[in-house]
Amino acid sequence: MGCVIRLRIDLAYDGGAFYGWAKQPELRTVQGEIESALARILRTPADGPQPRLVVAGRTDTGVHASHQVCHIDVDESALASCVGHMDAPAEVALQRRLDRMLPDDIVIHRISRAPEGFDARFSALERTYVYRVRDAAVPMDPRLRGFVLRLDDELDVDAMNEAMAATIGLHDFGSFATPNPGGTTIREVKIARWDRVPVRPLVAYADETARGSLGTPAYVTPAADSGLLTLTIVADAFARNMVRSLVGASIKVGQGKRSVAWFRDKVAEPKREGETGPIAPQGLTLEYVAYPPDDQLATRAEAIRAKRTL
Amino acid sequence: MGCVIRLRIDLAYDGGAFYGWAKQPELRTVQGEIESALARILRTPADGPQPRLVVAGRTDTGVHASHQVCHIDVDESALASCVGHMDAPAEVALQRRLDRMLPDDIVIHRISRAPEGFDARFSALERTYVYRVRDAAVPMDPRLRGFVLRLDDELDVDAMNEAMAATIGLHDFGSFATPNPGGTTIREVKIARWDRVPVRPLVAYADETARGSLGTPAYVTPAADSGLLTLTIVADAFARNMVRSLVGASIKVGQGKRSVAWFRDKVAEPKREGETGPIAPQGLTLEYVAYPPDDQLATRAEAIRAKRTL
Repeated sequence: MGCVIRLRIDLAYDGGAFYGWAKQPELRTVQGEIESALARILRTPADGPQPRLVVAGRTDTGVHASHQVCHIDVDESALASCVGHMDAPAEVALQRRLDRMLPDDIVIHRISRAPEGFDARFSALERTYVYRVRDAAVPMDPRLRGFVLRLDDELDVDAMNEAMAATIGLHDFGSFATPNPGGTTIREVKIARWDRVPVRPLVAYADETARGSLGTPAYVTPAADSGLLTLTIVADAFARNMVRSLVGASIKVGQGKRSVAWFRDKVAEPKREGETGPIAPQGLTLEYVAYPPDDQLATRAEAIRAKRTL
Repeated sequence: MGCVIRLRIDLAYDGGAFYGWAKQPELRTVQGEIESALARILRTPADGPQPRLVVAGRTDTGVHASHQVCHIDVDESALASCVGHMDAPAEVALQRRLDRMLPDDIVIHRISRAPEGFDARFSALERTYVYRVRDAAVPMDPRLRGFVLRLDDELDVDAMNEAMAATIGLHDFGSFATPNPGGTTIREVKIARWDRVPVRPLVAYADETARGSLGTPAYVTPAADSGLLTLTIVADAFARNMVRSLVGASIKVGQGKRSVAWFRDKVAEPKREGETGPIAPQGLTLEYVAYPPDDQLATRAEAIRAKRTL
């Protein structure tokens, strides 16, 4: 076996038809699909070690990613062999082959050589998730139902944000999450805000003089996500079920079924019990994973491997 | 049988799992789903005349509608009986029951009493369609693949618009469409333009002072349709396959496979032959149907029933 190279893979997927990221026997998972495609492209011998991805955010069944990051260690000669007739660096050739082989609910945006010390999971600085809701304020667009939760309520967005403000900072989210074996539910939330997406035209018609002959329509088509309600939440990392449980609890506040004080108590007293279970997965998308500058990657990974405490 | 009332129905659907609008035996169609739900709600006797919808735009297999309009004539007493325990006018009660009964790829936005002389098909003034393409300029978002066509080419948008300009006005679109039996392919195109959707943040973060404690994310999530290429086309009406054929032909121009002059010749010489067949349906959405003011509805219907000529 020759030299081993670590590759960083940036990708996106529609989680609707997957049993989440993590490989499971007999079930369709994102990791399972990519690893088996990689084994075919890299011609990994069936009796040897198989390709194994390490991911930044292990998404659950039905959760999407518009930007996910993982890494894989591959043999340099296996990587070089996938260039074939392409006039491109080996990692670009691999990206093209992999993207073409995968089903259309996974898109490989980029494959690059990972910088020294890079670990997709442990080097990550923070993750951004967005949860999308269509409430009574706007008509439902059925084309979006795969990644937007439809609620027919009128929601009190100010109350939802009052509740969410209690999550900012370092807390034990034990009321909203399940710890991994040997792990904690202590996390640092940096941002957590519900916003109303403005109603905007799909296209701006400012450049009229340049296009006179093509005209300006009398009816202006709105942008797809006009008027949706979105939770943007950023943390160093998230415990299992944490985002969907926070979304569900804050929506109960928005519906007037629970008070802001009830929500705050759940943050103050970390205890997993009824009424804070996870909401439906389809509204949730992992939007972004941020990494520190290359020279701080290894230090970050060291720090994050240490167990979190309050 | 009592008094008959004409209802206007405004609705939306994801066309991905339908064999188009028009009812066909044994196939799942939008009209078929709605008519059978209406028969159940209005308790239409099985041996009598069944509910029958008249639609503004008969969309093909796989084509979506974010705003479609149809009408139906119902018996006043059958309509009144669907109020039940609801504290709402009969047409609102019907809208709620129908929307609840239908599968989630159809959404009933509104049901209202149609004004005198209204005919969903013949009173319509113009239809707006949008075709959405993701080209090489932006990364593909797999969550949108149900209503956006993925192309990996770099497209010459100026050339595509130069071609499209030739469609503006009254023309025989015989190169791009199939006439209905006894009909023509003469239509009046009012607008036809390709635009690049601007890359925009999902949410505007201008109101920072008001929300200080919830913070502003370092990573700004883009709006779903950022960077897409869209054709907006408006005409009095469209002949069968016309939009998708114009899209396909103008994309060939954008790819450099055909010239602007070739496209113009197809408009000037209406002849159905190879190379102008319809492109994939999933990128196409009927966005809007416009009607004249109520007092011109009947006059409009009269005029449009007359056969179009050049």
